[in-house]
Amino acid sequence: MTNSRYILKSESINEMKGDARTHFLNPRAKRIRKTISTKVGLENIGVHIVYVESGNESTEHHKHYDEEECFYILSGEGTLRIGDKNYAIGEGDFIGFPADTAAHSIINTGTAVLIILVIGQRLKQDIADYPLKKKRLYRHDDKWDLVDWENINDPR
Amino acid sequence: MTNSRYILKSESINEMKGDARTHFLNPRAKRIRKTISTKVGLENIGVHIVYVESGNESTEHHKHYDEEECFYILSGEGTLRIGDKNYAIGEGDFIGFPADTAAHSIINTGTAVLIILVIGQRLKQDIADYPLKKKRLYRHDDKWDLVDWENINDPR
Amino acid sequence: MTNSRYILKSESINEMKGDARTHFLNPRAKRIRKTISTKVGLENIGVHIVYVESGNESTEHHKHYDEEECFYILSGEGTLRIGDKNYAIGEGDFIGFPADTAAHSIINTGTAVLIILVIGQRLKQDIADYPLKKKRLYRHDDKWDLVDWENINDPR
Amino acid sequence: MTNSRYILKSESINEMKGDARTHFLNPRAKRIRKTISTKVGLENIGVHIVYVESGNESTEHHKHYDEEECFYILSGEGTLRIGDKNYAIGEGDFIGFPADTAAHSIINTGTAVLIILVIGQRLKQDIADYPLKKKRLYRHDDKWDLVDWENINDPR
Repeated sequence: MTNSRYILKSESINEMKGDARTHFLNPRAKRIRKTISTKVGLENIGVHIVYVESGNESTEHHKHYDEEECFYILSGEGTLRIGDKNYAIGEGDFIGFPADTAAHSIINTGTAVLIILVIGQRLKQDIADYPLKKKRLYRHDDKWDLVDWENINDPR
Repeated sequence: MTNSRYILKSESINEMKGDARTHFLNPRAKRIRKTISTKVGLENIGVHIVYVESGNESTEHHKHYDEEECFYILSGEGTLRIGDKNYAIGEGDFIGFPADTAAHSIINTGTAVLIILVIGQRLKQDIADYPLKKKRLYRHDDKWDLVDWENINDPR
Repeated sequence: MTNSRYILKSESINEMKGDARTHFLNPRAKRIRKTISTKVGLENIGVHIVYVESGNESTEHHKHYDEEECFYILSGEGTLRIGDKNYAIGEGDFIGFPADTAAHSIINTGTAVLIILVIGQRLKQDIADYPLKKKRLYRHDDKWDLVDWENINDPR
Repeated sequence: MTNSRYILKSESINEMKGDARTHFLNPRAKRIRKTISTKVGLENIGVHIVYVESGNESTEHHKHYDEEECFYILSGEGTLRIGDKNYAIGEGDFIGFPADTAAHSIINTGTAVLIILVIGQRLKQDIADYPLKKKRLYRHDDKWDLVDWENINDPR
């Protein structure tokens, strides 16, 4: 049989251009992201292959309040920061953060490209904290509300 | 740093014994399953490394009505059946089934062990159809209700 | 101002014809139902005004596994059966059943029409048990699967 | 039978003291609220009987982005403001606002106490806008984050 809409062949993934993204809060967080889940029609699980060059970070240090996310290292080496501690990670390691747990980010401290299979829930809404920037992002569908912690008040 | 509760090192995954499982509807569907998502505390995304020996099937041919699931082939070769059609799959291929789409199953038609990263939503409830057995499974939390299609009626 | 799409005036409710419904498992469960929630566009909460004539039942004795439901008695008197016990109910009483609690049904044991404001979650799926009929209904969107308890098996 | 945990008799509702509440953004929004849904164990639907004295408002003018809410007027008369328009409401009227529709509030413009059955979804999280105060409330479980509109930015 020729291909199916539910299959994304390895060669097709290789040929995807990917999105070159720099995190809006961190100019050193530069990566190429290939979102493979939407190619086969998935709506509630996001699966991405993320390529981080040596010296770059995967994202701004953050945590999610609602969405679980996890990482399977496909190749390369790096350093995973959890809270304010660092851990060496490499090929075949699996990392997961339940909702509302520790802030985290990955730096490619190796010499080769770090390739990560990034998996996450895709909920209608989520809140993310960026503790190093003291900012909170409230996401609701495609609406993004970024607020400085100092401007948030509990009215009660 | 020593290890974190959020990291499952490659060596730890290798040392996991895994669950040897045979599908309740298909004696040829035999596999070893290592559930890595719960090891790091994830509750809403299931991530498993599944090992299928040559000649064996991954599961009984089925579809889910609610849970999305997808597969990233870590190594080996096989045949993916979708509906009544067959497709060759191999290392680096990504396969995903949105909810309520086609029935599917994988057979290891290669000579090496087929190793699959299996990812799925973990919803409170789901319905699965097994079209070759004409059975439907209603899952609700940990309650499993299996019913023959011929015993299902629409009362309206 | 003239009327708004978000308001259903008392007079408009009175003029609604309502659906005359007999429960598919119980010929004595006859009622008129006016679904007022959808008139103003609500999708996730169902609100109905239900009219039960003297001697009739509101519904077949049942419980829901997922959807919460509750009742506010607008006028009249009746008997609420919970499990195998009976309770007198009347105007101004509030009754609610969390998911997966007791089976229940209401009989108009008074002389006037019993008028009930019925409120319930509207989830994508639900399971209901009818213990007097030994049947289970699996509802998924608009698909209804009714099964006799004796035809349900746990395959594990 | 004596009473059941699923029944809240009319007399018991009358004897409830209720919470005297003034809205944190509006000193004229004063009401007594009796939450009857939690008395019978409901978790996902909130049902309250709200008493608003003549001249008082039910709440600060607001809309919800996620939670549906609706109102059944049990007795009294008032004015419902929707956006910047006013509508007369009274006993037996039903009012409902699907998520992310119009901002609304009720003023008791009659002489008697206005008694409202207030029904709403109880979701894990919600966002509410208070357009007259130019503020947004992000609620996540029991965490309330109130922010001035002028401090919200879209980082993209």
